[in-house]
Amino acid sequence: MSTSRIEAFSDGVFAIAITLLVLEIKPPTHSTDLWHDLGRLWPSYVGFLVSFFTIGVIWVNHHRQFELFVRADRTLMFLNLLLLFWVAFIPFPTSVVAEYFREGTQKDVASAVYAGTFLAMGLSFFSMWVHAGRAGLLGEVTPEQLRRLTLRNMLGQVGYAIAVALAFVSPPASLALCGAIALYYVHPGRSEAG
Amino acid sequence: MSTSRIEAFSDGVFAIAITLLVLEIKPPTHSTDLWHDLGRLWPSYVGFLVSFFTIGVIWVNHHRQFELFVRADRTLMFLNLLLLFWVAFIPFPTSVVAEYFREGTQKDVASAVYAGTFLAMGLSFFSMWVHAGRAGLLGEVTPEQLRRLTLRNMLGQVGYAIAVALAFVSPPASLALCGAIALYYVHPGRSEAG
Amino acid sequence: MSTSRIEAFSDGVFAIAITLLVLEIKPPTHSTDLWHDLGRLWPSYVGFLVSFFTIGVIWVNHHRQFELFVRADRTLMFLNLLLLFWVAFIPFPTSVVAEYFREGTQKDVASAVYAGTFLAMGLSFFSMWVHAGRAGLLGEVTPEQLRRLTLRNMLGQVGYAIAVALAFVSPPASLALCGAIALYYVHPGRSEAG
Amino acid sequence: MSTSRIEAFSDGVFAIAITLLVLEIKPPTHSTDLWHDLGRLWPSYVGFLVSFFTIGVIWVNHHRQFELFVRADRTLMFLNLLLLFWVAFIPFPTSVVAEYFREGTQKDVASAVYAGTFLAMGLSFFSMWVHAGRAGLLGEVTPEQLRRLTLRNMLGQVGYAIAVALAFVSPPASLALCGAIALYYVHPGRSEAG
Repeated sequence: MSTSRIEAFSDGVFAIAITLLVLEIKPPTHSTDLWHDLGRLWPSYVGFLVSFFTIGVIWVNHHRQFELFVRADRTLMFLNLLLLFWVAFIPFPTSVVAEYFREGTQKDVASAVYAGTFLAMGLSFFSMWVHAGRAGLLGEVTPEQLRRLTLRNMLGQVGYAIAVALAFVSPPASLALCGAIALYYVHPGRSEAG
Repeated sequence: MSTSRIEAFSDGVFAIAITLLVLEIKPPTHSTDLWHDLGRLWPSYVGFLVSFFTIGVIWVNHHRQFELFVRADRTLMFLNLLLLFWVAFIPFPTSVVAEYFREGTQKDVASAVYAGTFLAMGLSFFSMWVHAGRAGLLGEVTPEQLRRLTLRNMLGQVGYAIAVALAFVSPPASLALCGAIALYYVHPGRSEAG
Repeated sequence: MSTSRIEAFSDGVFAIAITLLVLEIKPPTHSTDLWHDLGRLWPSYVGFLVSFFTIGVIWVNHHRQFELFVRADRTLMFLNLLLLFWVAFIPFPTSVVAEYFREGTQKDVASAVYAGTFLAMGLSFFSMWVHAGRAGLLGEVTPEQLRRLTLRNMLGQVGYAIAVALAFVSPPASLALCGAIALYYVHPGRSEAG
Repeated sequence: MSTSRIEAFSDGVFAIAITLLVLEIKPPTHSTDLWHDLGRLWPSYVGFLVSFFTIGVIWVNHHRQFELFVRADRTLMFLNLLLLFWVAFIPFPTSVVAEYFREGTQKDVASAVYAGTFLAMGLSFFSMWVHAGRAGLLGEVTPEQLRRLTLRNMLGQVGYAIAVALAFVSPPASLALCGAIALYYVHPGRSEAG
């Protein structure tokens, strides 16, 4: 299968998952103070924001990764499907985290599940990269570039693993770290400039 | 990243957000007078109509804007992601406005949030345009064309800002203004003819 | 705007609307006789079936229509947006018709609204065709072909108008007619062979 | 109609159906032991997993099938629409199976409906293949390849038919068989190597 069709299908899943997130935000009903009640939904907005930009950043980096691939094999295709599985799953932990930050209880479990989903997604992404390197699917990449990109890929996973642990110390800090990792990947990194 | 892939991804988000809007309209249950009860849902229909054509118009103008871009940089890509964030968010304020026009209360807050979302979306759109002008991403655009298109872009934001304020005077007028802005952008404008 | 990008965006809306239909079918909860309770959902299955194939057929004919267009103008683009508005709306009357056939009441109103939505969609489709003919957007079409295709287009609208009226006599017959119109359009028609 | 546009539309439906599956997983509310209550949702996760990879595998094989087609006719287009009908329907039996495995009752009916949907989907897929062979839509395929691919296609249907029957003996075994069939199709098969 050509990499372009895998990319098109993946883009579809990214675009749908990123847009479905909003369905988890339910308008308050019978409100007598709508500013206040909309304000109380802040965990939903934060969850929407972090999940939206995380999926957005994964989409950008997915594309950059595929630009380096000269061909695809069946393993790559199914590792990619595994990545999409986690991307498509994101709306669920997003609504869990929104629900329990609003309820003000069980925030540690909710945040751990949230960060854990990002970790699983990141590991799928990383395994695609490792497989591509081993199976010779990469085109013109110098060993130095490969080392840098691999390091850059790994850093996010380390960050998400810390976010999972941090959830049991400070749930808001765990969420903030997930947001910070998305911001980190916004920055192109040295490998692009070099 | 090529502008064409950003466009394809954006088109996906536009198409999904525009189609998800319908999920906010819930059929009345156990109705004994279905004409009447369907009629009572008119705020949902109006919200669907205004949001649908606003996203539709943004889609058309997004495409026209990207036709002028000769290349994309990372800032453009993330400003575009910010635009899509607001587009994907639209179903939420649409259901808020439908809910509170139906309840007949808190219509000012609901309309202000609705128009405010369009304003945020418009400002993201406008910031993409300003960034593209400064970063030299535009191709063959004369200074006169640039001035006209910038003015045209700004007019919508002024309109949405007025709609936010108007929500506290007359919520229906605020909604009507949002609809009128969509109609304004249907018209191609002088820049296209010139 | 090129017709190909309008087509791609329209395909997105068709594909999403056709897939969202399933969300209106809710599994029975706490059932002690699941075969029976799944069976009671038959109006949802019929609605899903008729709406699915109606959108599917509109998609096929939309493509055939666009193959004849040599260019698009702004009016065409917005008539197309109007068509998509009705396509995106279809999940709502589908769930209304399913709800009231299940409740066994108000079936006439529900069927009339259902067929009425298809009529509105058909008229949007037809107006695109008329506009394209008048504005010279059609390529190599003989007057004879044009006459046939126009007639064929019109027949569906007549059928849907009859289905709206029929809803007040026999709601199931109205639904059956909507299904039959979809089947009629499956057949390519003489214009394609000639 | 060109096969490429049918493929693009189909990819859209696959991508949307695969991503909508997550909407059926509802976060537990007011939980005092969130780990436990998230754990109780395991049938939803299993359903999501099996349905996700089944749709994913169908997507991969759909693409491989279309690569062999040199042209499409109207019958193929509507058999493909029938396939998409079943694909779009999958989120419904997925939520039925999740609901009744969670409730711990009526699991046989739920599993039979689930496997039955996959069987219907598989038969649509198989009928496309048979039609393509008879109508001469296949390009360079040797009789030996044709025989192998037909056999491979049929095996899945036999598997799903067994899974329907197995549902009345052991619902979990029926589900496991559905998962195993997806895994079977992950493997490329001899026809690709040969």
